[in-house]
Order: sequence, then C-alpha cells, then structure tokens
Amino acid sequence: MTTPQQAYQDLCAISREITLVNSIGGLLSWDRETYMPAQGAAIRAEQNAYLSGQGHRLLTDPRVGELLSTAEAGDWGADPYGDERANLREWRHSYDRSTKIPTSLVEEMSRAAVLGQTAWTEARRKSDFQIFKPHLAKIINLSRQTTDYIGYTETPYDALLDEYEPGETTANVKRVFEALRDELLPLVQAIVASPRQPRTDILNRDFPIDRQKLFGEAAAAALGYNLLGGRLDTVVHPFCIGIGPGDVRITTRYTQNFFNEGFFGILHEAGHGLYEQGLPAAAFGTPLGEAVGMGIHESQSRLWENFLGRGLPFWRHFFPRAQQTYPASLGDVSLDDFYFAANTVKPSFIRVEADEVTYNLHIMLRFEIEQAIISGDLAVDDIPAAWNELFTKYLGLKVPDDSLGCLQDVHWSFGGFGYFPTYALGTLYAAQFYEAALQALPNLEEQFAAGDYSALLNWLRTNIYQHGKRYRSREIVERVTGQPTSHRPLTDYLRRKFGPLYQVNV
Amino acid sequence: MTTPQQAYQDLCAISREITLVNSIGGLLSWDRETYMPAQGAAIRAEQNAYLSGQGHRLLTDPRVGELLSTAEAGDWGADPYGDERANLREWRHSYDRSTKIPTSLVEEMSRAAVLGQTAWTEARRKSDFQIFKPHLAKIINLSRQTTDYIGYTETPYDALLDEYEPGETTANVKRVFEALRDELLPLVQAIVASPRQPRTDILNRDFPIDRQKLFGEAAAAALGYNLLGGRLDTVVHPFCIGIGPGDVRITTRYTQNFFNEGFFGILHEAGHGLYEQGLPAAAFGTPLGEAVGMGIHESQSRLWENFLGRGLPFWRHFFPRAQQTYPASLGDVSLDDFYFAANTVKPSFIRVEADEVTYNLHIMLRFEIEQAIISGDLAVDDIPAAWNELFTKYLGLKVPDDSLGCLQDVHWSFGGFGYFPTYALGTLYAAQFYEAALQALPNLEEQFAAGDYSALLNWLRTNIYQHGKRYRSREIVERVTGQPTSHRPLTDYLRRKFGPLYQVNV
Repeated sequence: MTTPQQAYQDLCAISREITLVNSIGGLLSWDRETYMPAQGAAIRAEQNAYLSGQGHRLLTDPRVGELLSTAEAGDWGADPYGDERANLREWRHSYDRSTKIPTSLVEEMSRAAVLGQTAWTEARRKSDFQIFKPHLAKIINLSRQTTDYIGYTETPYDALLDEYEPGETTANVKRVFEALRDELLPLVQAIVASPRQPRTDILNRDFPIDRQKLFGEAAAAALGYNLLGGRLDTVVHPFCIGIGPGDVRITTRYTQNFFNEGFFGILHEAGHGLYEQGLPAAAFGTPLGEAVGMGIHESQSRLWENFLGRGLPFWRHFFPRAQQTYPASLGDVSLDDFYFAANTVKPSFIRVEADEVTYNLHIMLRFEIEQAIISGDLAVDDIPAAWNELFTKYLGLKVPDDSLGCLQDVHWSFGGFGYFPTYALGTLYAAQFYEAALQALPNLEEQFAAGDYSALLNWLRTNIYQHGKRYRSREIVERVTGQPTSHRPLTDYLRRKFGPLYQVNV
Repeated sequence: MTTPQQAYQDLCAISREITLVNSIGGLLSWDRETYMPAQGAAIRAEQNAYLSGQGHRLLTDPRVGELLSTAEAGDWGADPYGDERANLREWRHSYDRSTKIPTSLVEEMSRAAVLGQTAWTEARRKSDFQIFKPHLAKIINLSRQTTDYIGYTETPYDALLDEYEPGETTANVKRVFEALRDELLPLVQAIVASPRQPRTDILNRDFPIDRQKLFGEAAAAALGYNLLGGRLDTVVHPFCIGIGPGDVRITTRYTQNFFNEGFFGILHEAGHGLYEQGLPAAAFGTPLGEAVGMGIHESQSRLWENFLGRGLPFWRHFFPRAQQTYPASLGDVSLDDFYFAANTVKPSFIRVEADEVTYNLHIMLRFEIEQAIISGDLAVDDIPAAWNELFTKYLGLKVPDDSLGCLQDVHWSFGGFGYFPTYALGTLYAAQFYEAALQALPNLEEQFAAGDYSALLNWLRTNIYQHGKRYRSREIVERVTGQPTSHRPLTDYLRRKFGPLYQVNV
C-alpha cells in the first residue's frame, strides 16, 4: 500500500520530470525565436512535438490520478496554503484540466491552430477577414466543446478564463472591468481634448541600436535583473522565458528612430524576468516554484515598465544617463519634455502600441467580444462589425480595416480565448501592489530618484515572488493589499499621473 | 507474431526517437557553449542527464534486442550494404555495445569522468600530474574493465577503438602509423634544418574580429556551407554540431593578432558542417542518415581546412579578397609570402596548434601511450616520463612541464581512450580522398583558383556524404579510392607541398 507521504513524494518526482521536459521545450522555443537557422524549423517542430507528447503523457498518466487520490487522503495540517496542500491543489487542477478534455479534441485543436495561424497571417497581411473566417469558426467550435468538457458553474467563458487565471470568474472580471471603463472613458476624452500635448518628435530621433542594447541592459541590471543568470536577445515578438533557476532570458526588438520600443520593451520583459528570478529555486519542479499565472506575471511587467519605468522619479536618475548615451538626440531636451513625451496618451488602433490609459480599453473590447463569441450570442460573420462598433465607442476612432481591427492579434488563431483579460487584470494588480508598496515603504520614489530599486524588489520578492503558486491570484492580491481586485488604485494612479501632465481634472 | 518487416519498422521508429532525443541534447550542449548564462549550468546538467537517461533507456530496452533478432531473421536481399541490412548492422552494433557494459560500470565511469575533468582542469592549470593521477588511475581501471565486457579478438585496445572507429583494428592502425612515422620524421628534420623559413609575423598583425567573422563566414559559404541551414558562433572550444536536417551549426574562436586561428578554424568546422549538411535528410533518424564515424568526419574537416584551404590555388582566389578586407595588415604582403606563412611547419608542444606535417606525430605518440596504458605495460606513474621521452624522439623538443605534455588534452579525463587515432586516420583518409578527387576531376585546382568549389563538394557528396553509415570507414575508403587505408597519399602530398616551400628533398 502506498502511503499518502509516499504518494506525495512520487508526485514530486513526476512533477519535477514534467518541469524538466517543459524547461527543455522552453529552451528550444527560445532558440527558435532567436538563433535557429530558418531551415531548422521542420526538425524543431518535431523536437517540440516530441517533448509536448512526453509532458502530456507524464501529466495524464492514470497513475498520477491514483497517486493524487492517495496523497489527498493524507493529513497535511490545517493550513490550506501549507507546502503539501498547495502543491496537491495545483497538481489536482492541472490533472483534472488535462484529463477532462479527450485527446482527440486536443489533437483537433492542435491541427486547427496550425492551420488557423497560417490563415490568420495571410488574412492580416491582406486585411481580409474572409480568409480567416472558416478557421476561426472551427476554432470557436472546438473552444466551446472544450468548455463543456472542462465544466463551469455560471458561464462557459469561466472554463476558458480558468486556463490562464485559475480561480478567476467571468462575473468578477466583468464587474471590475465595467467600473474601470466608466472612469477611463471620461479621462481619455479629457486628455484627447486637452490643449496641452507632448513633443513626441523627441522620441523619434536617432537612437543607434547598439547603444539601445547597452543602455537597456544597464537599466534592466539596475532594477535587479541578474544578467549572470539571464541574457537579453533580439527577436521579432519579445518575450521572457524562465528555463529554470539561474537561467531566465529576456528578449526585445529595437527601432532606431523610436526610443520607447526597445527601452520600455526591455523594462517590461525585465519585470517578467525579476519575477521568474525571484521564484524559490529550491521548489523548482513543483507548483511552489512556479509563477502564479498570467495575471500576476503581467502585473510585474506592467509594474516595472509603467509604474516605475515611466515615472518621473525613475527619469530623475536615468534621464541624465540617457542624455550622455544619446547626446545628439537628447542633449537639448528637458527632463519634463522627455517625461511628458514618454507618457503620451493617444487613442490608436493597435493594442500592443497603446499607452497606459487607453490600453485597458483595448482589452475590455476583446473581453466583451470573446464572451459573446463563446456564449454563442455573436456569430463569426458579425465579429468585424461588433469590433468596429465597440472600438468607436471606447476609443473614438473609426477602424479603417480589419488588419487594424479584429485581425491584429494572434490569440484567437491558436484558440487562446480567455487570455486577453489577464493583461488588464495584471495592470489592475500592478496598481494595487504599487499602492501597497508605497504605503509600506514611504520613501520609495525618493529611492527611485537616487537610482535605488532594491527596496521595491525586496518587497515584491518577500510578498509575491517567493510564494510561487502557494496562493492564487485573487488570494495573493488580498493578502498583499488587504483588498479584493479593484479598479480604484489604477484609476487613482492614472488621475494622479496624467491629470497634471495634460492639465485635466476628471 | 511480429514479422521481420514489422520489427524493422518498429526499430526505425525507436531509432528515430533516440535520434530526436540526442538532437535535443545536442542543441542544449550547443547553447551551453554559446549563450547559456553562467548560472544556468546546474539546471542544464539536469536537463542533459534527463535526456541521456531517456536515450539510454530507449537504446538498451530488451525489446530492442527482441526486435533486432526478429528483423535479422528476415530476408533483406543479397547486398550487405542495402538499406535494411546496413541499418540492422549498425543497430546491432550499438545495441550490443550498450548492453554488454553493465549499468553500474557506465554510472561509475560517468561519475569518475565528472571528477576526472575537474581534477584535470586544476592539474593542467597547476601543471601538476599528481592532482590528476588518482583519477586517471581510476578511469584507466574502468576503461580496462570496459574492454573485458565489450570483448576483443587481438588486444583490449581494439574494444576502445571500436567505439570511435567501428570496424577498425589496433594492428591495422599500428601498421599504417608506423609507415607514416618513418617518412614523417626525416621530413620534419629536413624542414627544421632548412635555411628557407616563412615570415610568420605577417599573420600576427591586426585582424579586427568583426571582419574575421564576416570574412570567415563568406569563405565558409563559398565552400558550400549553407548558412540558411546553419550558423557560426564564437566559443572557447570550437566544434560543429548537426542538430538535424536544416540545422547544422559551426563555431570558432578568434585572436585579433593571429589570422590562422579564426580563419582555418572556420574552414575546419565548415568541413565538418559540409559533411553533416550532405547527409541524406530522408534517412534522418536511422544510421543511413548519420555520419560514418570520427575518422571520416575528421577527414572532411582536414580536407577542407588543409588540402583545400591551405593550398595555393585556394589563396589565388582568396588572397586578393583578404587584402581588401585587411588592407593595413596585408596590403604590402605578397601571395607567396602569405601562402608560405600560412603553411609554417614548426615542431611545438600543443597538438591543437600543430601544423599539417607535425600534427600526426602528436597523435602517434598518444596512440602508443594509450596502447601501453590499456595493455597494462605502462603504469600511471610512468606516463609523464614516457610521454616526454617519445616527444623528444618524435618532435625533437624537451617537454618543459606536464601542462605542455601529457596534461594538455581533455580526452583521458572523460575516459576517451581510443579517440585520438581517429584524428590521424582522418588526415590519412583526407589525403586518399583528395588524391582520388584530383584523379577524377583533373581541373579541380584550376577551379579552386577561380573560387569554384562545387565540383569537389558534389564529388564528396556523391561518393561519401549521401551514404551515411551505409559503409564503414575502411570500406568507404576502399570504395572511393580503390585502395586500403594507406600512408602513401599523405606523404606524397606533404612532400609535393612542403618540398618546394622549404626547398627540401626527402
């Protein structure tokens, strides 16, 4: 007879093996995006498929189910967040999710995603929704089937959201997003109407790429991102990847005539990297050594990129250094002009280029459309019109074509319904964490102005990073801030920051 | 009942899986040497150990033995080199080799190698053989046990040689090496005594590393190395690695004040790369898609680096381009002076820095010492003295300390007895292939002088690369050249090349 203790140890070993397989797959993916020769794509796809198969086989082995039942019967103490109970909770969650969906559906979705991404690429290039439509219809159909297998209490969309933000519900997200929207809309309108506007040309001067790399790397290192256990490379679609303890890599892309893309991109990925580097190495291979989920991960990229990196205190220290690095482009610029330009707010079509104020409106639009798609209230044919109508309502612009509209993002082409909300949730969490950090550490912004970010990093490590998956997103937000997920800290922050910049008072 | 046909198909699938696992491990190793952050070493070691374990488990599964027996009982035609018979022969060879050695011995050797390499690194740095001695004694003991398990007809060393050059025998290598040695020694002595010596300072001028990379890459591409399915990176210990079809990577290292290291290093690795890129992609995953062995692999690096790349015809085309690339350093240099300098012959202590004429003497010395070690005729304590005595005999120099003597190479520290001879065998094969190519394609060197290497590459692809492991080294040499392995083409080539340069007539 296997004891609960023995079953738990066996699960640890299996979990560690799965993590190792995934970390190998992670390195292969990193290499594919950075250095793989173009003609190596076919064999790389086979390598990745092999590893995915291994990982899936390990995860869904009926023995895991038996071990889980045995271990769960053990007495693991009263604390639901104790090591064993937290690990068992997370193992159960992934085992159930991955065994509920039949293999045939997983494979069908996998094939549909490959075809879908190819069709989407062409559709976006030609701005022709018809090319993508049959694939999207298929993917929506498979996603809806998935929700039936996973199960849900209130609405099918819950089952999808749970993949990216375990424990979160559609109703809760909806409530918070609506409150946020009601405050954002007048703020955006006031900013657009303001006569005071930044000199954005400053950021479109010449910023040689070799200097951008060194300057960005120095900034990431100053925040605390450890380059002895990481590295910065150039890619088309930037990302951060944790291979394991001691190996957390970030990537970015540069535009020679645009300062923001490279620099704030690096801070964004460094934020993800700081989180990964702060996970407890000793717990590697178990949920306690892993990031909570997409929302908390995004909270860290947003916090370091925006709340810190686009703040005036940060630039008090870094702007003189930027001037030394780019004397011809920034020598005649004042800190105030630079700071205002770096914080330009302007409704625009593309989500990934959006500013701090308008960004979440892009997300809400997607969240609403996705819910209507999954509930069956919105037919595939009607997606472009629904998108364009909401876009005008939220951002005041008329979408000229679908490549700037509903075809701009890759997510739907691989069936990633439920992913988008985590971007906005991450921003909300970031605002809540930042507010709590400012309360706990009153001299924080003075430290930033002196180039010292260690107190913030230590606070985040202690309160968030070191816990891995011990708590779920909503729980960690409540534990750290004493409040449930809320729009209030974000809108307070945006008003405090952009009110004076644009001289608006909403 | 499994039919031989079904068993063969099953073996193909297993072989493909093993190849895939190894190719993933290959990429991980490449990354470790190129871009891995220093602190990622521990998790990388775990990833590699996991993959090695997977590969070993697949290879030694008793089911493989059953499938082999079933498949071997089939009727696969009269041609011993037909697809199925060749694959079955190679699968049998690796299955027997890996199942004959008990797992406990494999694991013991693995541990001894880790400790041995650490001790060797320190011993070489301090030039203190005593630090390495106990580890070397242990590794020798384990290697001798291995020969007992593998079995051999004539001498234990055969069992080790077979790992790196399957089908080759100690007696045959000895015969060829001795004939070679007897001709090399007087040639080296005459060259050393010659009053005509090159102006080597030419090669120690300033060669900016960014230019070396572009110039070397252009040369590799000109030879036919496909950079769309490959890449060139910088490492401490250069190597070539075939990840799979469409992904064959080479590496090098540069010295700013020494032309040869980067340039000829690139040609050497590009030679390995051309071989890997010439293997039949359709046979990937089976022995027919793999390189024959170390000797044939080395024959290609040597052929492209030395027989082609250090030849006068090659430089007739490339030297004007080198002058354009490095005008300050080579503008005032004549082709003849450059060519002579690039072909300097001078006895020296370090094998990897040795020239074409003295290189094989370094190998013979190691071959003799290894045989004596494995046969038990040479005690560990006596290795340094035996090395130094032979070194003086072969190269006319007195070894000042063991870091320039028996501690210089890593091979023994991981138990790589039997590896060294393949370097010299490769050079002999290269000479034989090159002689045969010149006979088959009489205008070859005129084509080189015109910058055209395609006829040579096509000839090598047709005669060697496309066959994968269909033939063993000795067989392929006989098939391509009509002759058994021989020292004669190499000594003829060396006399023809270095006789005029040094004005010696031996």
